[in-house]
Amino acid sequence: MAVSYVHMLQCNRGFHKGNLSYPNCSYKARRSHRLVFASMHTPEPKVDSLLDSVKWDTKGLVVAIAQNVDTGAILMQGFANREAIATTISSRKATFYSRSRSTLWTKGETSNNFINVHDVFIDCDRDSIIYLGKPDGPTCHTGAETCYYTSVFDLLKQQEAEENKLALTSLYALESTISQRKTELIGENEKPSWTKRLLLNDKLLCSKIREEANELCQTLENNEDEKRTASEMADVLYHAMVLLAKKGVKIEDVLQVLRLRFSQSGIEEKKSRVSQKSVDD
Amino acid sequence: MAVSYVHMLQCNRGFHKGNLSYPNCSYKARRSHRLVFASMHTPEPKVDSLLDSVKWDTKGLVVAIAQNVDTGAILMQGFANREAIATTISSRKATFYSRSRSTLWTKGETSNNFINVHDVFIDCDRDSIIYLGKPDGPTCHTGAETCYYTSVFDLLKQQEAEENKLALTSLYALESTISQRKTELIGENEKPSWTKRLLLNDKLLCSKIREEANELCQTLENNEDEKRTASEMADVLYHAMVLLAKKGVKIEDVLQVLRLRFSQSGIEEKKSRVSQKSVDD
Repeated sequence: MAVSYVHMLQCNRGFHKGNLSYPNCSYKARRSHRLVFASMHTPEPKVDSLLDSVKWDTKGLVVAIAQNVDTGAILMQGFANREAIATTISSRKATFYSRSRSTLWTKGETSNNFINVHDVFIDCDRDSIIYLGKPDGPTCHTGAETCYYTSVFDLLKQQEAEENKLALTSLYALESTISQRKTELIGENEKPSWTKRLLLNDKLLCSKIREEANELCQTLENNEDEKRTASEMADVLYHAMVLLAKKGVKIEDVLQVLRLRFSQSGIEEKKSRVSQKSVDD
Repeated sequence: MAVSYVHMLQCNRGFHKGNLSYPNCSYKARRSHRLVFASMHTPEPKVDSLLDSVKWDTKGLVVAIAQNVDTGAILMQGFANREAIATTISSRKATFYSRSRSTLWTKGETSNNFINVHDVFIDCDRDSIIYLGKPDGPTCHTGAETCYYTSVFDLLKQQEAEENKLALTSLYALESTISQRKTELIGENEKPSWTKRLLLNDKLLCSKIREEANELCQTLENNEDEKRTASEMADVLYHAMVLLAKKGVKIEDVLQVLRLRFSQSGIEEKKSRVSQKSVDD
């Protein structure tokens, strides 16, 4: 049974393998928050054959990790069975198998914060997968951006785990530090940090960005060593990120621009949005 | 029994919970590739108490994901039991529990490609952890940088999965594209891409970097909108990354510079390296 994607979004409330009953789409169903992005038919032979090659555990599951395609943040981790992966492939919404409820569930079916999957990767042992995608909003049920906001090392230091101290990789840890400086008030006798000085002085900030970009170029023009290039690039990146903080732009937004410009999946995504829009219109 | 970290690295060949026999350190042991980074004593009460709060599955395990602290790449996924996490915390080397061999194992004990853990994060449900760390070399036993180098979407398109087409997030996908352009030869009649033109012309490349840095500054100086800032920053980043490719510098190297400059853990790591060096000397 061929079911349009838009129709599925609006009406489908359950996943069943094979050709099964499909309820009429009612107003109530359209408004339901418990939408499930299920493929309403047996997976294509190619998908079936691929799923045959997965090394399922004794319960028919593999670990499924959802990762932000722009920032690399690990959003959440769940488990996926055959149907969950088939559904993710067909709907492009990250879908898991709930071990506690023994049901398929699509992240976002309650919160509307779906994870829009750009690609699925499987590991060398074929028993672990990554859903690489773009989240519509916070992934964690607590409202946090990701489910990993508790640092074990902080807990062991008996520090109060900072609220939303996410598992940030270097670029985002720096972004977070700059953002923190922006919110801090400066005491009268306090000597402001370099970041604060830059945030308070547009002329200084812009002069530094131009200066550092120039110095980065000089490492090429003067044939300086790689270490120097890495250091100058770090300077460019840091100062430019202060400007981003000043303007309220996230590095994630910048990376999204780059993805849409350069990646194949970006081009595909853009196309699909256009065609989706024409369907919706 | 207090055992120095260096001594452990050199001599320890097995993990035993509690106070157990500790072999004399022999030359053979020092050269052994099957080093295990075990804590030779019962975990500290704080660690023990923390481990009590973890929601272990029926086999006493949780999912453990190793992630590159600089790039965000998911390196591998395994499982960890109580001892594996305790060992990771004490040794700072990512340690797992092998379900097939029913033993503790530290990634790198055979290959020497350890994952040096900077922090451990636990999720909202307390049944999934991230080892956020810096790998010494490729993580996958195949020699690939990570274990996730097979794209399901490529497989479904019946394309040969490109060798080492890793699960790359936006920044690294762009880096990979630029790097690819660098290796491609230009046919006589072929019109080179913009990236290739930049790679072939230092003067053009440097003039573009300076120009884009200037335009980024102008978005602040002229109070242009956020979208424009994101777009100009994307231009700066792209052109600067072409320079990095030209100089053979990885964006990961740049992010490491930023981490060592700005993060607390970077400062700690630097300190620990200095003290480690003085012990080694």
